[in-house]
Amino acid sequence: MTESPYTLDKLRSTLIRLEDTIIFALIERAQFAMNPCIYEKGALEFNGATGDRNFLEYFFWETEKVHAKVRRYTSPDEYAFTSPLPEPILPKLEFDQFILPDNINVNDQIMEFYVKDILPTICKQSDDKNYGSSATKDIEALQALSKRIHFGKFIAESKFRSNPEEYIRLALANDREKIDELLTNKAVEQKVLERLRRKALVYGQTLDEEQEGTSKHLKIPVDVVVDLYKKWAIPLTKVVEVDYLINRGREAHAAAQRQA
Amino acid sequence: MTESPYTLDKLRSTLIRLEDTIIFALIERAQFAMNPCIYEKGALEFNGATGDRNFLEYFFWETEKVHAKVRRYTSPDEYAFTSPLPEPILPKLEFDQFILPDNINVNDQIMEFYVKDILPTICKQSDDKNYGSSATKDIEALQALSKRIHFGKFIAESKFRSNPEEYIRLALANDREKIDELLTNKAVEQKVLERLRRKALVYGQTLDEEQEGTSKHLKIPVDVVVDLYKKWAIPLTKVVEVDYLINRGREAHAAAQRQA
Repeated sequence: MTESPYTLDKLRSTLIRLEDTIIFALIERAQFAMNPCIYEKGALEFNGATGDRNFLEYFFWETEKVHAKVRRYTSPDEYAFTSPLPEPILPKLEFDQFILPDNINVNDQIMEFYVKDILPTICKQSDDKNYGSSATKDIEALQALSKRIHFGKFIAESKFRSNPEEYIRLALANDREKIDELLTNKAVEQKVLERLRRKALVYGQTLDEEQEGTSKHLKIPVDVVVDLYKKWAIPLTKVVEVDYLINRGREAHAAAQRQA
Repeated sequence: MTESPYTLDKLRSTLIRLEDTIIFALIERAQFAMNPCIYEKGALEFNGATGDRNFLEYFFWETEKVHAKVRRYTSPDEYAFTSPLPEPILPKLEFDQFILPDNINVNDQIMEFYVKDILPTICKQSDDKNYGSSATKDIEALQALSKRIHFGKFIAESKFRSNPEEYIRLALANDREKIDELLTNKAVEQKVLERLRRKALVYGQTLDEEQEGTSKHLKIPVDVVVDLYKKWAIPLTKVVEVDYLINRGREAHAAAQRQA
């Protein structure tokens, strides 16, 4: 028997590792200009039908089709941004059934804050024609953010298991506020933000000069990374967690009713 | 008139920036196990024809088809690993014609050393089933390495322009050794390796604990990054440069003959 990948310690270390991936992706994106035309419908001329999609959405869809074929979206921690997507060509993998499947997907909100609030703070406000490179890095950042935020389902499931009766009661009462309160730990959130600040400071250094560790030039503003979590990633994760627990509690109650 | 993107200073800063991208990609890849089956033909069961390709090659090909459609490979600094690829659906961009087009492409050698020499030194020797994630990170690392190494053409062109007569003479004499000697600057190479060591040390830190900058746990071995450049990237770049200059000198000579 292999060890469960879903102990709270392992969930926590996945979340911490994803912080690095998100910061790396933002640093990588920031080397290119904003290139606003890739986020505007109709701003780029295509030789072919792209329907109602802007360049990033078109490119994202094409990329997700490839990823879907190698079964990315059969994994319970991966959430697609686009649709429709083809079936996998690899045989289905059996994943440990840890979370209860549901339709919760906040990728539209992730796309929205990423393009409107994050990009303008890390990119030069110009057009350097690197449309494909910019979109490639956008996709990496968006996929990592999506994984981080939807990972709330795993955290929520592990909280549910620690106290099912309470969460069933709150779910049936639709008491989102109280669930949110149970999920909130201000001290832990503060530690996350401090760790992000350290990571953004260290990973964002330009180390081209010889004075190791003394570089004052940062590739992205440290505050952007901290705010990204404070204003968007942490609150959206909580939306996912609360949605998950409402559904989870109700389903558990219904299952118990059926058994009684 | 916009500034030329091909001054020696700008070429140099592109090369330095690519070091970060390569290190980030290796760090990202190293979070997954080696997963040797993705590099072996026939090791994974596909529902569909993949011809003679292993999983990485299949996934790479599908990814490059998407990138080709958004004209990645019309850029003079991008070299595809797979073929055949579709035509772009975006109208052609006019690039400054700085280098002379040629067929020099060392991606097969890059794939070879990456899979055989780099991966086993940064990944756990096991199978964690993260095939798609591993291949995605492989593709990022390979594309960045390919760009770095083929960038030698731009450096070679700028050397050619500084002394065309000499390079034409050496090209006609097929004196690869002497060209290689002209391109080699041991002191500069030593500085590159030292900078890489600094970057690998700083970017590879695990910053999960609170002792900022004192982390002793590195996500990839520093020596791997230094050796990657010393044994592979720098020598292969020089192969590209010499090949380029042989072709460049001969073409320049032929053009002069036609004019005379």
